[in-house]
Amino acid sequence: MATLKDVAKETGLTVTTVSRVLNNRGYISEETRRKVYDAMKKLNYHPNEVARSLSKQSTNTIGVIVPHIRHPYFAELISNLESQAYRHQHKILLFNSQEKNEKEYEYLEMCSSNRVAGIILCSGTVGVNEFQGLNVPLITIERFLENGTGAVECDNIQGGRLAAEHLIAQGCRHLIHISGVHETAMPADERAAGFCEVCVQKNVQYQVVGTHAYEYNHLEYHEVLEQLLLQHPDTDGIFASSDLIAAQLLQVCAKLGRKVPEQLKIVGFDDVNIASLTTPPITTIHQPIKEMAATAVELLVRAGEGQVVPSRTTLPVSLVVRGTTERKTEGEDDKAL
Amino acid sequence: MATLKDVAKETGLTVTTVSRVLNNRGYISEETRRKVYDAMKKLNYHPNEVARSLSKQSTNTIGVIVPHIRHPYFAELISNLESQAYRHQHKILLFNSQEKNEKEYEYLEMCSSNRVAGIILCSGTVGVNEFQGLNVPLITIERFLENGTGAVECDNIQGGRLAAEHLIAQGCRHLIHISGVHETAMPADERAAGFCEVCVQKNVQYQVVGTHAYEYNHLEYHEVLEQLLLQHPDTDGIFASSDLIAAQLLQVCAKLGRKVPEQLKIVGFDDVNIASLTTPPITTIHQPIKEMAATAVELLVRAGEGQVVPSRTTLPVSLVVRGTTERKTEGEDDKAL
Repeated sequence: MATLKDVAKETGLTVTTVSRVLNNRGYISEETRRKVYDAMKKLNYHPNEVARSLSKQSTNTIGVIVPHIRHPYFAELISNLESQAYRHQHKILLFNSQEKNEKEYEYLEMCSSNRVAGIILCSGTVGVNEFQGLNVPLITIERFLENGTGAVECDNIQGGRLAAEHLIAQGCRHLIHISGVHETAMPADERAAGFCEVCVQKNVQYQVVGTHAYEYNHLEYHEVLEQLLLQHPDTDGIFASSDLIAAQLLQVCAKLGRKVPEQLKIVGFDDVNIASLTTPPITTIHQPIKEMAATAVELLVRAGEGQVVPSRTTLPVSLVVRGTTERKTEGEDDKAL
Repeated sequence: MATLKDVAKETGLTVTTVSRVLNNRGYISEETRRKVYDAMKKLNYHPNEVARSLSKQSTNTIGVIVPHIRHPYFAELISNLESQAYRHQHKILLFNSQEKNEKEYEYLEMCSSNRVAGIILCSGTVGVNEFQGLNVPLITIERFLENGTGAVECDNIQGGRLAAEHLIAQGCRHLIHISGVHETAMPADERAAGFCEVCVQKNVQYQVVGTHAYEYNHLEYHEVLEQLLLQHPDTDGIFASSDLIAAQLLQVCAKLGRKVPEQLKIVGFDDVNIASLTTPPITTIHQPIKEMAATAVELLVRAGEGQVVPSRTTLPVSLVVRGTTERKTEGEDDKAL
């Protein structure tokens, strides 16, 4: 098998330079990089990361644990975590916990026995004790964990405020907030606090309706949404805690003949692809997912280097107005049904 | 640090039994498994997979390379690959190539240097030569590669046939098929062949319109779809090569005042979550994604054990009828707008 020395000889570069290309350390010109890769290919040289990891007692791998992969929010988050990890020369080991405590524990064990550089946890059910003795940075995104290294969240309270303010400004007077999962405490629960605060302030009638783990695990809300609309026929504004719920709400409105946005206005949360793919598209609270992913990876890498990192980082959200709260008046939409 | 022997002593089991639990070999009762995990936790024992991998010169990790993560088809596929890998005690290292040749090559190199057990490639641009000398099973899903170990596809020709037959049976006489990316040859191109075959047979007017890498890479088709509808106002049936394109087509129809399904009927492809989340939901060709993922992981594992595996496996598709081709007549939809 070819060695590092063979690659250096083939390229006419020093072993140090070839090693710097492989480890992505310091400035390397595109030409030099290309030369090294070409030589590696020609000589069929593959550096053994496993051996290197053993000597370092760590790998450049990040364990990412999510409760769902197909959920549009987590798909978007994973996509961003992957590209941010790539920027730091890290790769991701992806685990889908499906919110099962047992499975999450097994995954943590896998992360540990594979000597990951750190863990990014986006899933809600693991208890505090599970993480003792892991000895790698543990970063959470949008979840609570007492003994994590750093928590990354969006400004959920502000998101709730923005949603309520917008619905009220659009004329809604009977509001409902469909909140997160009853069974697990999550930073997302704060959205309800911001929402209620504004409703009280503006003296507008409102209620908060929780959802259950069953719906969350199955990504299926049609039945509860239909019951909700039938039980509260005077509702004219709904703030849903995800774009996925908002999309299903749009379908239930079509079924019940409730016109959106004329009779009912809807604000979602997340601003992921589904919000732009429905008809009408969904007004929503934009989570800065790209920046949250970048922060999570950066915290993990810095903590791994022994730096002190913030234990909590909150990133701002913003309102994105689309068709579920505003009938557009420009020419193009005059033709709309 | 605790050792395997300490765990055995703590549980009262033999070292062989504890080792069997860790390697998931043979029958182990839930009680024994629990006992071992509890002792591991108590003693803070973490088996070193990295050291084990080095002695085996391979890991139980599968490198999964996809062109997109946020695309609903790939999110669904990744989700299924992860759960199938878990069933075989494998984990997945996820790489997003974004269809860039350069990046895909780097990822292959990463897979190789991390001694993955095999690679599942769902992305289209890597050439034949890149894989020489990798020496691990290489399974492709829905793409061509001359020197792969095994290719897994759905029956694309049949999918094209089913779409055309259904549109014609629903009364459409001016059909368009929006096909895959011009720049790359893919198994999905066969959908056009099946579609054309039926149109010729039934003597129905049709055309096939290609899309470009730009649209595919940006998941953005609105402009080309609007141009298409404006240029061909008599079109009454469209077969789109993905549910994502079909969802965007629904939005363009709303903008142009084209009623779906009354004036224009739409059939998508994939049957992923977006198809059920639009209003009306999308009639589509169901790809057996779960079975395709199961087959891919199984082929990889079996090939890794030295077994001879099929070089090509084709799984059947089916038609799922929803609201974009049929106005439902039951009570619930009478109320629909």
